[in-house]
Amino acid sequence: RWIKFEEKVEDGGERWSAPHVPALSLHSLFQLRTCLQNGMMLLDLDATSFKEIIDKVLSGQPEEAELQPALRERLAALLLLQPQHQPTKSLLQLLAELGLSPCRGKAKGRSEPRAQLSKTPLKEQLRNRFKKKVPPGAEAAHVAVGEVEFLEKPFAAFIRLRRGVSLGSLAEVSLPSRFLFILLGPSKMKAYHEVGRAMATLLTDELFQRVAWQAEHREHLMAGMEAFLDELIVLPPGKWDPSARIPPPSHLPSPCRRTAVDPLDQQPHGNGDMPAAGDRASPGHPRFGEELERTGRLFGGLLRDIRRKAPWYGSDFSDALHPQCLSAVLYIYLATVTNAITFGGMLGDATSNMQGVLESFLGTAFAGFIFCLFSGQPLTILSSTGPVLVFERLLFSFSQDHSLDYLEFRLWIGLWVAFFGVVLVATEASHLVRYFTRFTEEGFCALISLIFIYDSLKKMLSLADAFPINWQYRLDNVTSYSCTCNLSSPGTAPAPRHCGGPKVSTCDPSSPPTLSLQPPATPAGLSRTQCLHRGGHLLGTSCHYVPDVTLISFLLFGGSFLFCAALKRFRSSRYFPVGVRKLVSDFAVILAILASCAVDAVLGLETPKLLVPSELKPTNPARGWIVFPFGANPWWVCLVSAVPAVLVTILIFMDQQITAVILNRREYKLQKGAGFHLDLLCVSLLMVVTSVTGLPWYVSATVISLAHMESLRKESAASAPGEHPKFLGIREQRLTGLAVFILMGVSVFMAPVLKHIPMPVLYGVFLHMGVTALNSIQLMDRVRLLLMPAKHQPDLAYLRHVPLRRVHLFTTIQLLCLALLWVLKSTVAAIIFPVMV
Amino acid sequence: RWIKFEEKVEDGGERWSAPHVPALSLHSLFQLRTCLQNGMMLLDLDATSFKEIIDKVLSGQPEEAELQPALRERLAALLLLQPQHQPTKSLLQLLAELGLSPCRGKAKGRSEPRAQLSKTPLKEQLRNRFKKKVPPGAEAAHVAVGEVEFLEKPFAAFIRLRRGVSLGSLAEVSLPSRFLFILLGPSKMKAYHEVGRAMATLLTDELFQRVAWQAEHREHLMAGMEAFLDELIVLPPGKWDPSARIPPPSHLPSPCRRTAVDPLDQQPHGNGDMPAAGDRASPGHPRFGEELERTGRLFGGLLRDIRRKAPWYGSDFSDALHPQCLSAVLYIYLATVTNAITFGGMLGDATSNMQGVLESFLGTAFAGFIFCLFSGQPLTILSSTGPVLVFERLLFSFSQDHSLDYLEFRLWIGLWVAFFGVVLVATEASHLVRYFTRFTEEGFCALISLIFIYDSLKKMLSLADAFPINWQYRLDNVTSYSCTCNLSSPGTAPAPRHCGGPKVSTCDPSSPPTLSLQPPATPAGLSRTQCLHRGGHLLGTSCHYVPDVTLISFLLFGGSFLFCAALKRFRSSRYFPVGVRKLVSDFAVILAILASCAVDAVLGLETPKLLVPSELKPTNPARGWIVFPFGANPWWVCLVSAVPAVLVTILIFMDQQITAVILNRREYKLQKGAGFHLDLLCVSLLMVVTSVTGLPWYVSATVISLAHMESLRKESAASAPGEHPKFLGIREQRLTGLAVFILMGVSVFMAPVLKHIPMPVLYGVFLHMGVTALNSIQLMDRVRLLLMPAKHQPDLAYLRHVPLRRVHLFTTIQLLCLALLWVLKSTVAAIIFPVMV
Repeated sequence: RWIKFEEKVEDGGERWSAPHVPALSLHSLFQLRTCLQNGMMLLDLDATSFKEIIDKVLSGQPEEAELQPALRERLAALLLLQPQHQPTKSLLQLLAELGLSPCRGKAKGRSEPRAQLSKTPLKEQLRNRFKKKVPPGAEAAHVAVGEVEFLEKPFAAFIRLRRGVSLGSLAEVSLPSRFLFILLGPSKMKAYHEVGRAMATLLTDELFQRVAWQAEHREHLMAGMEAFLDELIVLPPGKWDPSARIPPPSHLPSPCRRTAVDPLDQQPHGNGDMPAAGDRASPGHPRFGEELERTGRLFGGLLRDIRRKAPWYGSDFSDALHPQCLSAVLYIYLATVTNAITFGGMLGDATSNMQGVLESFLGTAFAGFIFCLFSGQPLTILSSTGPVLVFERLLFSFSQDHSLDYLEFRLWIGLWVAFFGVVLVATEASHLVRYFTRFTEEGFCALISLIFIYDSLKKMLSLADAFPINWQYRLDNVTSYSCTCNLSSPGTAPAPRHCGGPKVSTCDPSSPPTLSLQPPATPAGLSRTQCLHRGGHLLGTSCHYVPDVTLISFLLFGGSFLFCAALKRFRSSRYFPVGVRKLVSDFAVILAILASCAVDAVLGLETPKLLVPSELKPTNPARGWIVFPFGANPWWVCLVSAVPAVLVTILIFMDQQITAVILNRREYKLQKGAGFHLDLLCVSLLMVVTSVTGLPWYVSATVISLAHMESLRKESAASAPGEHPKFLGIREQRLTGLAVFILMGVSVFMAPVLKHIPMPVLYGVFLHMGVTALNSIQLMDRVRLLLMPAKHQPDLAYLRHVPLRRVHLFTTIQLLCLALLWVLKSTVAAIIFPVMV
Repeated sequence: RWIKFEEKVEDGGERWSAPHVPALSLHSLFQLRTCLQNGMMLLDLDATSFKEIIDKVLSGQPEEAELQPALRERLAALLLLQPQHQPTKSLLQLLAELGLSPCRGKAKGRSEPRAQLSKTPLKEQLRNRFKKKVPPGAEAAHVAVGEVEFLEKPFAAFIRLRRGVSLGSLAEVSLPSRFLFILLGPSKMKAYHEVGRAMATLLTDELFQRVAWQAEHREHLMAGMEAFLDELIVLPPGKWDPSARIPPPSHLPSPCRRTAVDPLDQQPHGNGDMPAAGDRASPGHPRFGEELERTGRLFGGLLRDIRRKAPWYGSDFSDALHPQCLSAVLYIYLATVTNAITFGGMLGDATSNMQGVLESFLGTAFAGFIFCLFSGQPLTILSSTGPVLVFERLLFSFSQDHSLDYLEFRLWIGLWVAFFGVVLVATEASHLVRYFTRFTEEGFCALISLIFIYDSLKKMLSLADAFPINWQYRLDNVTSYSCTCNLSSPGTAPAPRHCGGPKVSTCDPSSPPTLSLQPPATPAGLSRTQCLHRGGHLLGTSCHYVPDVTLISFLLFGGSFLFCAALKRFRSSRYFPVGVRKLVSDFAVILAILASCAVDAVLGLETPKLLVPSELKPTNPARGWIVFPFGANPWWVCLVSAVPAVLVTILIFMDQQITAVILNRREYKLQKGAGFHLDLLCVSLLMVVTSVTGLPWYVSATVISLAHMESLRKESAASAPGEHPKFLGIREQRLTGLAVFILMGVSVFMAPVLKHIPMPVLYGVFLHMGVTALNSIQLMDRVRLLLMPAKHQPDLAYLRHVPLRRVHLFTTIQLLCLALLWVLKSTVAAIIFPVMV
């Protein structure tokens, strides 16, 4: 059977082969041409049943070639036999049959092989699961070939019906039939089957189909066949095993392209784009249409953005009704929460808790929600970013040093930034984005991804500090390890010791074990917390260490990362039906998190958990929810703030717009257009609110936004067997983003659930996100090329046209720039890093 | 350029494309046919230089087509220009050039493009690295095509030289040339390049080559071309992208097969064997030739075995001179040591150390050495096996219960087994082996591999018992965890407590923490060993636990397993030149072990290490090195022993011969033949020695022997670009085995080195061996099929011919039998498990 590619019933007779490219022998095509040339040809035959067709065909023979009536009858009887169809069975059906009775199926398959063709479709035909693979509007063509002993010369007929007619149980599924080809003959000529394959292949060719539909004479059809022959590609016999089946290519030339130009002319020596690598190899740099054109009017770009996005607003909600969105919401929610906690913690460190984890939560929830509701690109996820963090740290220490009120100072800077932002929107500065090249974009994306990877690893290694392992532990010394509470002599212990974290102990590992010889001065029944509460301190060689927690954390980290990656890749595995695979792959991250949580819960060690704040009050009790613009600082501060504000504006503009460019890459096939001006306006206005309430500032986060888009990929359900599912685009909608940030807002109440999630698992997910984002850029492909001998390099389009040395040079320069950026961002100069980008 | 497949210089002009199947357009072949038909043809031309050839060609035109002298000169000058060759550069050269000067290479490449052809080969040609890719004895053919403005009609010439002549700098590498094809013409006809490709493809066809060599007239050549056209395979235009390059297939039809039968007849509809899957899909069951035929004479098979193997004896040593063997020796040595320690430990448990680790070492070294020296299949590695272990355990407890001397009883059984073994050899019982089918063989191999996997995992889990983790550890309770030595009141502690292992402590984890409130009765400076030595016992909540060791062991276990697998797979990766990849893959296991040892050493935790005995005396002091046949037991025991001996004989025979069958699988392409009778004789005679000295009994170990063979695979260095390296066979020799067992023997002196290897790393290697052995059987392929929808199933040869239901049924029955065997071997019935096989 042929839908697009060839499938055959294997010799075993109970299994359809995998679809493959129908490789024909040239000989059989020439034989087919002879058959069409000399055989019978009935165009626009009127008939309503197969019997009628057969009758007309057999009686319509020219006189000199007419068959004897007896022969004719035998032929008709033969043709009217019910063909035996091979049902397409699912994996489950097959296994079930295996369990029930191993021989039943076979007997059934062979039952009544001599039945007459039914006039109405059989029950099996109507129920056939295969039908859903047939594209809508398809018509059937029948090719009947074979050796018949009683014939003395071949009998060939090509029939086109005037209307598509359902021919009862002739076809495997019930479809209207249009073309029929019959070739029967004596067994001397052996290649009937091959000629039949050639006819079927010809009939599945789009161009020949058109010809066959419109042909009025035999000559038209022959011309169509000649055109087909002209386009043939041949494989030399010694270089290809004729019995090997060629798997369907991932990309096919479109019929229009075939007609447009002479293929020889177009592809002189097999030198065009390699379609398999097409997606990423094609210039990933978006070609912005009118989105980034200058209108020349104030706010012209913004108005266009709004006009462009407004018609989609309704569908931005209705398009979200798909289970995939649920998975995306959970995945991105957990990523955002982890990110907010990470950045919140770091901001808290940098600003003495003027902005802490709770502020980070509320700010993210609020800013993200507003952005998703009003922005031009609602798939973007807002987050604090590295450069902003560096700026806040500098600003806070500057305020401390010069006795300025940090929050008030920051408020003014925020207001200035918002003002500059609006000016940039008004002057349509975002059109500059079109000058960003692949070089910039990839450098930025690689840097951000590397920071993600680096941070997750650093966080994991910092666990080894928080829960130190006693690498010198010797089983033999077990008697010398202990930890007791010493209440009696608080004077002897150094006073300023802070007793907050697990790191704290009064004895360091190098202290001699004889310390534990001191008789405990207090009842040892006190727990660590009780002891520290009563002002005691801990004495002993084991106080400093926490066994097993770090290592189990690493196992969870590695486990969740590998599990994520494996489940994501499960989509393209060969096992299980496609539905199961899709579901597993869509929910890969959630499944990995759940599995790791389960393992952690079963083991029961005190691994560090995700702890979200559960009280709604500012982290630093010294501040309120509203920052007042005047009062604490001298009046001129509000003017001077404009200077740092310029820096922040550049920072925010670059950070925001490069991410926007990356998210609007052409390869994502976004339908609803971008909104560079609108997005910048949203970010600027949000600056006002977050500055007034003393919450962190937000811009687009590249890696999480990419993960958001990746989790919303739409793919066509593969239709014809052998066709690859096509990437259709992203589910562009606002609902997943909104849901993420609503969940974020109510996280304060979900603390009891969230506290069961171990942090190492979330770091594993972060690592996965970083690696995925890093692998999505062409730069990584080119880095791999550096390590590959030329003959093993994949057949990428740019490698066919650009000298390898140039490619390597480009990669090397990009890598050097990346290294430079990395060094920059690791120093105080991090603040000017967007300018360097 | 064409050696076997097509390679082209990419548009960038600085890189050879990957080799691919030359897909031609049918059109260009027809054009070529016209050219050959009408163009000039000079067969057996005598010439010594390209200039002479050109002169003769241009002057030899028939009169009516003769060119004007001016035109002729221009043409000659054009043809005599030096063609520009594209050098094949290595990865290093390319990167080095990149570093030095990015533009130099290009300038050089373009230098003097108009130079005259040199009469002697250029320095570059002689130095060209590409030369080693050209098969020895190859001749060059030159195809020169192009558009020439000053010509008015095409000029085509096909030249065959009488002798192969080196044409100076014409060819890329210096080779004698035989055929030349020139096609120049005005730019109206566009497809010259395509015609040139077609000519080159034709000239690389083996059958056409023969015709072209022998052709005496144009007609002969045309007939050869027609034969080529007849065999062509065509791809329909809409189903295949003409610009996609088809990678070279892994297997090509041989030219003889092509001539033998009409290809249409032979492969009627793409239905032959799929060569890619051929190796494993082809019946793996060895077809023994005369090796297992009965001679009907006493010891006839044995004599034949000796006669067959004797001529190879010298080469059994000389064939081992390859670095691969070094890797194999180290790998198999470590596997054998680990195995000896594992089995030695278990035997020691089962027999109260009558056979312990040291006996296991000595026995393995001795038996293995002798076997490798005299056996028929010296790649076999001897080892204790599970069934033997079960028998020893039963025998020992039987002896205990009936007050018999175990070793003396065992000696008699061993002597009887040896006798029965010799009888089996004499009667050529091994010929029964030919009735073992794939079913048996795979079941046995799967079972043994599963036991390997299961054992390595079980050993790892037992670490968690040996070094218990305190899963209830709470940071807050750190003050309550301690362990002290209690010397004062030995009376209060239960007396029979045995204080040997890390598991031992007087307090169990459920005891209340108040236990530690007892004031330590002795100075706490005593270490654990000192305390136990002085008769004290350990008191406290932390005595029972060993932190971190178990988890780090699991990390090392997983790490070494994954590292092994990744490095093994590195051979087929695309990175780095093939030499590096081969080396890394050959030494994969050793590298993985070294890396894991380094990690372990750096971390410095007290992980369990490989400890080999370092003193040469029997593990149980109650026994000596020689077992005396009489004295301890009643006289009739030596007769009664024949009964259990029958059981052991069956056990040994089956275990030995199934392994031998697996090792002699046809897919290993062994050259030196098998020696079933000789091997059985060796095993039987070794039984005598090991029984007398009270060492364990040995038979062939499937998994380690398979690993041994796998580590000695020979592959052809890929010759022509695009050709896949072929599996040539196994390095069959005795030296690796001998070296392994010599090392084994001197292991006693290597204890200081070996004690740095952590056991978890070796268990990881065991897991790798088990998984590799499991994956080497077709059963696993079929189990995977159970989970795969039909359309994703690989195109295996048996699936083309056997109904899927049958395949599934076969797999299911095999799995059920395997499960039954597993259950059997887990019970006491393990002893009859070979009979069940």
